[in-house]
Amino acid sequence: MKKEEHLAHMRHSLAHLLGASVMELYPGSKLTLGPAIDNGFYYDIDVAGKITDSDLGKIEKKMHELLKTWHSFEKKIVSKEEAKKIFAGNEYKEELIDDIEKKGEDITLYTSGNFTDLCRGGHVEDPSKEIATGSFKLDRIAGAYWRGDEKNKMLTRIYGLAFNNKSELEAYIAQQEEAKKRDHRKIGKEMGLFVFSDLVGPGLPLWTPNGTIIRELLNDYVWELRKEKGYQKVCIPHITKKELYETSGHWAKYADDLFKIHTREDHLYAMKPMNCPHHTQIFASEPKSYRDMPKRYAETTMVYRDEQSGELSGLSRVLSITQDDAHVFCRENQIEDEALAIWDIIEKFYGTFGFDLQVRFSRHDPQTPEKYMGDEEVWIKAEKALENIMKSKKVEWIDGLGEAAFYGPKIDFIAHDSIGRVLQVATIQLDFNQPKNFGLVFTNEKGEKEGVVMIHAAIMGSIERFMSTLIEHLAGVFPTWLSPIQVAIIPVKDIHTEETDKIVRELKNADIRIDHFDYNDSLGKRIHSAKKMNTPYIIVYGDKEKESGVLTIEKIDGTKIQMKLDQLISHLKLEIKNRS
Amino acid sequence: MKKEEHLAHMRHSLAHLLGASVMELYPGSKLTLGPAIDNGFYYDIDVAGKITDSDLGKIEKKMHELLKTWHSFEKKIVSKEEAKKIFAGNEYKEELIDDIEKKGEDITLYTSGNFTDLCRGGHVEDPSKEIATGSFKLDRIAGAYWRGDEKNKMLTRIYGLAFNNKSELEAYIAQQEEAKKRDHRKIGKEMGLFVFSDLVGPGLPLWTPNGTIIRELLNDYVWELRKEKGYQKVCIPHITKKELYETSGHWAKYADDLFKIHTREDHLYAMKPMNCPHHTQIFASEPKSYRDMPKRYAETTMVYRDEQSGELSGLSRVLSITQDDAHVFCRENQIEDEALAIWDIIEKFYGTFGFDLQVRFSRHDPQTPEKYMGDEEVWIKAEKALENIMKSKKVEWIDGLGEAAFYGPKIDFIAHDSIGRVLQVATIQLDFNQPKNFGLVFTNEKGEKEGVVMIHAAIMGSIERFMSTLIEHLAGVFPTWLSPIQVAIIPVKDIHTEETDKIVRELKNADIRIDHFDYNDSLGKRIHSAKKMNTPYIIVYGDKEKESGVLTIEKIDGTKIQMKLDQLISHLKLEIKNRS
Repeated sequence: MKKEEHLAHMRHSLAHLLGASVMELYPGSKLTLGPAIDNGFYYDIDVAGKITDSDLGKIEKKMHELLKTWHSFEKKIVSKEEAKKIFAGNEYKEELIDDIEKKGEDITLYTSGNFTDLCRGGHVEDPSKEIATGSFKLDRIAGAYWRGDEKNKMLTRIYGLAFNNKSELEAYIAQQEEAKKRDHRKIGKEMGLFVFSDLVGPGLPLWTPNGTIIRELLNDYVWELRKEKGYQKVCIPHITKKELYETSGHWAKYADDLFKIHTREDHLYAMKPMNCPHHTQIFASEPKSYRDMPKRYAETTMVYRDEQSGELSGLSRVLSITQDDAHVFCRENQIEDEALAIWDIIEKFYGTFGFDLQVRFSRHDPQTPEKYMGDEEVWIKAEKALENIMKSKKVEWIDGLGEAAFYGPKIDFIAHDSIGRVLQVATIQLDFNQPKNFGLVFTNEKGEKEGVVMIHAAIMGSIERFMSTLIEHLAGVFPTWLSPIQVAIIPVKDIHTEETDKIVRELKNADIRIDHFDYNDSLGKRIHSAKKMNTPYIIVYGDKEKESGVLTIEKIDGTKIQMKLDQLISHLKLEIKNRS
Repeated sequence: MKKEEHLAHMRHSLAHLLGASVMELYPGSKLTLGPAIDNGFYYDIDVAGKITDSDLGKIEKKMHELLKTWHSFEKKIVSKEEAKKIFAGNEYKEELIDDIEKKGEDITLYTSGNFTDLCRGGHVEDPSKEIATGSFKLDRIAGAYWRGDEKNKMLTRIYGLAFNNKSELEAYIAQQEEAKKRDHRKIGKEMGLFVFSDLVGPGLPLWTPNGTIIRELLNDYVWELRKEKGYQKVCIPHITKKELYETSGHWAKYADDLFKIHTREDHLYAMKPMNCPHHTQIFASEPKSYRDMPKRYAETTMVYRDEQSGELSGLSRVLSITQDDAHVFCRENQIEDEALAIWDIIEKFYGTFGFDLQVRFSRHDPQTPEKYMGDEEVWIKAEKALENIMKSKKVEWIDGLGEAAFYGPKIDFIAHDSIGRVLQVATIQLDFNQPKNFGLVFTNEKGEKEGVVMIHAAIMGSIERFMSTLIEHLAGVFPTWLSPIQVAIIPVKDIHTEETDKIVRELKNADIRIDHFDYNDSLGKRIHSAKKMNTPYIIVYGDKEKESGVLTIEKIDGTKIQMKLDQLISHLKLEIKNRS
């Protein structure tokens, strides 16, 4: 058995243990469903009485007590009638039993210790031996409607964490605590990077001046890397007639996820959820010859998806998604060079922030052809091309069977952040299908029309999601080149502002972003304000500095350096230029 | 009588003359309506037979013939019955007679020469004396549905041009011909700056790489000017809950003009038709003190308006409008400085392109209070503030009574382009009303909450409209700094490409945008291609250049200069830097 599968079995077994413990402590409660999840398990229970977070210790104690007596899971297949007798009075289990019967499946019970539950299976063989004492922990309580339907009764959901062993559990808890401190919503608010407005609506961030500086600098950086590779900027509107998506194939697949607009003349338009179909229309607007190929169009622009409001969260999930999108229109024999050029950009970009990258080969699943557009042979050709590229890069890749886009296979890049979390970031997607739908061709050397291949390649992907990732990765401590405020200048007293004004002017002339804390407030408070913004360089200017002409500069890590102003400017310019 | 009124009377009299002439030449035709318009007049006629453009000479001749005999317009008020008798058999006039009667107005006839028409009046006293022979000209024929309704019969519309005298008419015709040559739709296509796609829809331009270069450079220039004045960039989404516009007051005024979105969760959203309400939410997101004022938010972003498709035209009227928008949130005593700073930017920006600017003071009309938001006294205060600013700039202004925005008065800038056309461009708008609706305040020196004033200030206004204006103003000959291609390099023969490759590299390193015509086509054709793009500098490189090391460079005006490559680079860099 694979390690992940064993862990899932442990977690599922623990859900049983949780159910059993609640039944002992709160007799008359009704158990409903208790699955394994990503970081542990939960059980949804119609509790006789009330369970709050303060009761979790007691329940956990009971779990440990029972665990010692659980040496196996005994399976038994029963008839509907037997099952209903056993769970008599528990309308939830009765409903589940009916459902299983309707599907024509076996009704199976599993017993461990004195506890029997309706269950499909998937447990460890000997819980008392295979589940280490310190490897699990009850986490928190939440409300959950029976079957997720708000018309049903609200149940008590008890969450537990579970890992292979105590140290893994502790590492996870530590990571969660660190993540909480780094939460981009919290840091974003403290640093004033973006805001939400009730009048505008959820999932629609408004970017403040400070947040916009970071967005633009990130975007400029991506563009700098792309420009070197011969990309050109284009610009498209955010809406289109639905005909564009009928042709591309998106309408059939994603019509429900689109924001739709009925115009005054009763046409049906959609807000764009992606940019590729629009970009094909720029490519197609003039006949192309082999001399024109490849064309590389880049555009940073917002796309819109009609998400459920319950799914929205900070910058990680929004309705207005800024993509740093690009599409390369090339010939088949140009795929490798173009994909490698994109790979270069991705490595350079993520390397700058110290992300470790892993590669996933997201290919189609031949078992579910209905999920994809186009012919099997085209898919095989496209996947072969990506495989060759990964081989030429000499990387090991994770296999992503069934993870392809509906129009083609992808190389996905997975980043590991500074607290060990794993996130999908950039992607290189190969697409033989949309060019075919749009009839994109060029005239080759022989004067014949030849089909075009598209490569979709976002670097940040979504600027919103990348910003949330970056803020948490850096805990809000941006490198100098990205900091909204690069230098804070704090005159000790009013009389020093004449000098600090001069310093401010010189730094501004050198295009350094500064904040001058020259107002009437205590020195301590002003230093605190500067530090709250994670300002990389803070200069407190008083009599000593005036006399010596040497500045004492406190860096973000607490170290202090002493420099004259012109030295500082050279130092900053170099640091900014190198993005170090 | 004012000169403009007299001209309108001449044009209206000419419509009569046109009607009379057609009736003589095409007896049995039915006249319908014949008004004066901006550049002349027209008459919509249900013609007995057929009139084509080739008949216009004949009709014009008849007009000259009749004109000599028209010495007055005799007015007569008649009863419905009399009128119906006179126009018996003309169902159009009969319908008009019924309409006049329904409104309870007098039915008036006007007779000149032998010709009588149903008419409200507004003629010259003596056509034969007041209308100069060469001052009018029949222009063209078009189809027009009776009363503009496509369910009705299609009539023949004959357009005529008419001005005060022959030289004015000739000047107008020359301007029109020049304008036709400069039509931005034609030049935009030739230079490949933007395209439309049937799949995307009308009024939704897609910007090609070349067009995007110009857009971005224009936008960067505006930003450069704004940055000097302390503006900060912000960034907002393109949609909002309708509550934002209910609060701002836009929903009540403009709900019909908005693209509306019903989300999957059945909320009502709108695409933004302007940015001010969103920007207020960034301002309002944190409490502000007098030390924070003013805040100057700038953002170039697309807004959307649900226009009728018949109104759309090239870049002049589009659905996706890119605004280089900015909003200053300031105190009352900062209005003047802020408005003057914007005025500086406008003068600098338009001066760069050689536009002459005029100023219009667009104020509210106290007679139609229903068109405006807020109290009369606030309007008077706001208008006084703008008046003071114009006085301090010592300019004469055109009075724009009733031309204010619904939330406040404006200073509108009117540009005169290189062929004498007049266009509204930038604007400075003062707004006391939206800040009130959104409750925007700051804490003043006394610790009290004080109301904020907003200044709306777009420089280009809409980039699309400005681009259409600029293309026509420059006839597509962009200055070097704006040219998508700044230098074209054309090797005479294949053997010269080794050298031209080197030149291309050096120019690229100097950040000059070049096009290398190094492919297999005749020298003449390649030079033609380079010229088609209005390339400011064209270098043909052959044996002579190789031997001498001196380049011969043909400038866009046809003059030739000789320079070494490094001299050329310095020359170009200076020209680009100075935007000259």
